[in-house]
Amino acid sequence: MGSHRKGGERLERRTRGPGAHHEERRNQIADAVLAIVADRGLAAVSLTEVAAEAGISPGRVQHYFPAKQQLIEAAFDRGNALSAARIRRLVGRDLADADPRSVLTTVLTELIPYDATTRAHMRVRQSFHALAFADERIAARLRVLYDDLHRRVAALVDPGRPDMEAALSLVALAEGLAAYVLIGHTPPHVARERVLHAIAEVYR
Amino acid sequence: MGSHRKGGERLERRTRGPGAHHEERRNQIADAVLAIVADRGLAAVSLTEVAAEAGISPGRVQHYFPAKQQLIEAAFDRGNALSAARIRRLVGRDLADADPRSVLTTVLTELIPYDATTRAHMRVRQSFHALAFADERIAARLRVLYDDLHRRVAALVDPGRPDMEAALSLVALAEGLAAYVLIGHTPPHVARERVLHAIAEVYR
Repeated sequence: MGSHRKGGERLERRTRGPGAHHEERRNQIADAVLAIVADRGLAAVSLTEVAAEAGISPGRVQHYFPAKQQLIEAAFDRGNALSAARIRRLVGRDLADADPRSVLTTVLTELIPYDATTRAHMRVRQSFHALAFADERIAARLRVLYDDLHRRVAALVDPGRPDMEAALSLVALAEGLAAYVLIGHTPPHVARERVLHAIAEVYR
Repeated sequence: MGSHRKGGERLERRTRGPGAHHEERRNQIADAVLAIVADRGLAAVSLTEVAAEAGISPGRVQHYFPAKQQLIEAAFDRGNALSAARIRRLVGRDLADADPRSVLTTVLTELIPYDATTRAHMRVRQSFHALAFADERIAARLRVLYDDLHRRVAALVDPGRPDMEAALSLVALAEGLAAYVLIGHTPPHVARERVLHAIAEVYR
């Protein structure tokens, strides 16, 4: 979880006082949930486990997140914020100023797990998909996430005439490949190569 | 679950006696597990729930499947057998004699949920993916499933020179789209259209 915490530091608001501390504690708990989901799946998330992983008391966890559902949603938000921060870091400059194709390549290849952090992120996302079958609130959050992601990818493919269908296929391909990488079927470099091939096709 | 049972009847061996009864009972239990996973997810699978869904005693379930892991694996096999039978029915003739492009279209579009049965099948498959993170045996079964599926798709794309990379992308795309359909993000006809577009591209 070292990398989650490290990434997290860059996300925190540069404020002092109780507000900043509150935010830091919430992130610490969300990171603990992410670590548990990545290691043992959503079923293993409990007040006791999260408290142990975060190194604080169960009462403290409950103070910030009274119900398990809120823990799960906090982890979802945290995972997405960390992923967005990672992409900004990799692109190395303001996304709006960078070359669209290079941003698109970063956004899509970041969906393919290649280290502990990206593996954890995609495991969490896949677990949320499974959870969404029985939980309409999680399903609604995933729909918002994908609407936003597909829209951004469409604008990168062609800012003048965003192609939502092409964007849908590109993201679906990357996520489908990510699922094969996670189960140890497809080597990360093969999945990555397929994504690069698909990007080359849309820019043809 | 009506459609699962109906499909199941076609799969049973045309034998009589205790062997056939045994097989029928195992299928009945596996169908109950599939129904529970589709409705409420893998976490809801328990001896009591499966017995209630199948309409038999918990002792009877345990006699056939002593541990939960075996129930899960039986449901996995059953789901795949039902899916294969559905594809054979749709193609309407021996797969080896049919037009490769029409078989490929059927195999890939069957991955996109469009009714209760296909939705159940893809929910079960996605749940198995999530389970595979914590269970190497399930992961190994998924790898075998995909090896086989990709190999068959590659042979349909070009029997003379099977293109495993193209097959990998086609199946990953269909499954990535299926995940969006399952969470209510992408309408089935849009996902289906993207799959047909990708098939047209490889046959170009």
